[in-house]
Amino acid sequence: ADEAAAAAVRARQATLTKPPGSLGRLEDIAAWLASWQGRAMPRLDLVEVLVFAGNHGVVAQGVSPYPPAVTAQMVGNFAAGGAAINQLALLAGAALRVIPLSLEAPTGDFTTDVAMTPDAFEAAVMTGYDAVDPGADLLCLGEMGIGNTTAAAVLAAALFGGDGADWAGRGTGIDDAGLGRKRDAIDRGLARHRAVLDDPLAAAACLGGRELAAILGAVIAARVHHVPVLLDGFVCTAAAAPLARLVAGGLDHAMIAHASAEAGHRRLVEALGMVPLLDLGMRLGEASGAALAVPVVRAALACHAGMASFAEAGVTDRA
Amino acid sequence: ADEAAAAAVRARQATLTKPPGSLGRLEDIAAWLASWQGRAMPRLDLVEVLVFAGNHGVVAQGVSPYPPAVTAQMVGNFAAGGAAINQLALLAGAALRVIPLSLEAPTGDFTTDVAMTPDAFEAAVMTGYDAVDPGADLLCLGEMGIGNTTAAAVLAAALFGGDGADWAGRGTGIDDAGLGRKRDAIDRGLARHRAVLDDPLAAAACLGGRELAAILGAVIAARVHHVPVLLDGFVCTAAAAPLARLVAGGLDHAMIAHASAEAGHRRLVEALGMVPLLDLGMRLGEASGAALAVPVVRAALACHAGMASFAEAGVTDRA
Repeated sequence: ADEAAAAAVRARQATLTKPPGSLGRLEDIAAWLASWQGRAMPRLDLVEVLVFAGNHGVVAQGVSPYPPAVTAQMVGNFAAGGAAINQLALLAGAALRVIPLSLEAPTGDFTTDVAMTPDAFEAAVMTGYDAVDPGADLLCLGEMGIGNTTAAAVLAAALFGGDGADWAGRGTGIDDAGLGRKRDAIDRGLARHRAVLDDPLAAAACLGGRELAAILGAVIAARVHHVPVLLDGFVCTAAAAPLARLVAGGLDHAMIAHASAEAGHRRLVEALGMVPLLDLGMRLGEASGAALAVPVVRAALACHAGMASFAEAGVTDRA
Repeated sequence: ADEAAAAAVRARQATLTKPPGSLGRLEDIAAWLASWQGRAMPRLDLVEVLVFAGNHGVVAQGVSPYPPAVTAQMVGNFAAGGAAINQLALLAGAALRVIPLSLEAPTGDFTTDVAMTPDAFEAAVMTGYDAVDPGADLLCLGEMGIGNTTAAAVLAAALFGGDGADWAGRGTGIDDAGLGRKRDAIDRGLARHRAVLDDPLAAAACLGGRELAAILGAVIAARVHHVPVLLDGFVCTAAAAPLARLVAGGLDHAMIAHASAEAGHRRLVEALGMVPLLDLGMRLGEASGAALAVPVVRAALACHAGMASFAEAGVTDRA
């Protein structure tokens, strides 16, 4: 991170026509953009939304009320412009790209097998890595995949401890019996793969999913290319979390865009020591929360770039 | 409120390609817009931001670190486009109007006098009432006035109980000694005007301010003209609060756009039983938080209007 750029932002903010600190997190966002873009005056000309899609062997355990065919159907809906993320990306002035990962070949069921071989995991990570435009000014990440809140919950448990009862939520709306099956599947997955739980990447391969691996790759690419990142909700945050376990401050270039209503997200956010920007009861995924936070980031930059100083405006500063 | 329009929104939402309820408050916002606009498909073509400005006799008590001349200077800054609200209104696609109220004649100091006579109060209320465009689709309200967090705090105490220690915050950034003077001024105001504390309008006249009275008038006009309202932070919410004390559900056509970092706002929000949309540590006023929430309201409408149904998109709904 470019601390000089962040310091330049703070110095300018002290001159603008407002009481010090009165724009709250908008001031922090401007400094954060500057520090990762390496520019004292950040820009948001190219905002990208990447949505990765994958299918999950663990759906065989009855963990979702929707059939896995919905993953590909929703990819079609994204292409046709009919999903929530299409509307939200348009409003955010962001370019949307949807990247399906081998939907016809779901991951292995982690209750009985590994989700991905090392090769399959690496391929998915690299798909995500390569998808990031090095010239992007801000990157929003999200996912679509029937069954993937189960994969996210078991991965979160592997990374931060706890069990199915701690991390499983209702996802797209599973009933009580299904929630029981989901918790049980998570506990069986943790037991089966206990030998790799200390290794964040091995855990992501054995328990996660292709779209989660791609998000991890995209977060790593963003770090390399100095692109600030907005993470979406529970699945997206869990997908990125291995980087925080591997490297202290590994997610400092990312903000969590919103606090998901999915049960495990608050626990995960606390474990990461991060504070989401928005809290509006959303639990849709597909980068919807990340795209919704883009106007807040644009607002931070607009105030920073456009406001007059006390001297320019002829306003008396306090004594 | 038009319950049929809200029901039509809910019925359409159940068909859209997302798990039921997964857009959280965005779904509530669409129904709220519909119910107050009286249209099953709401619109946001004309979004207005009104900022009222006033000066306060109570600044003689040393309650602000800024001199009262700053109120008129900031009105000049609004006209020149240099304030935060200029940037935020532009980003929100909203029309900004700033209405100064007799800045050269501050209100009376409520520690020794009434802030406004009944005539002066009524004139300020009517200025706000008349400022509302009956054809607006959404109205954002805000204020500017050195000393007005003191007026807002004493008015909140009058309406909901408590004293200076409960309601006074640091406003634009008063130091400890100033905070003590502010609490004391509030307590003296409450004692002096105790005879009118049971009458919300008389309390607003004796303790409030012209810009607060204008906000109250604008909120009433919005109700009459079926215009949904976004309230800004502490001062704006306190200004509107007399309507909630006069009529049960009197602020149902309003949402609180953000939770201000000003100390009294959370207490006030709880007293009103409302939940702010955003919580970003802002405490600037001038409708900045209200304007920042406009993109969230636009997002709610964009999803509602633009998403495909399960049938249209060929996506399998859950069993």
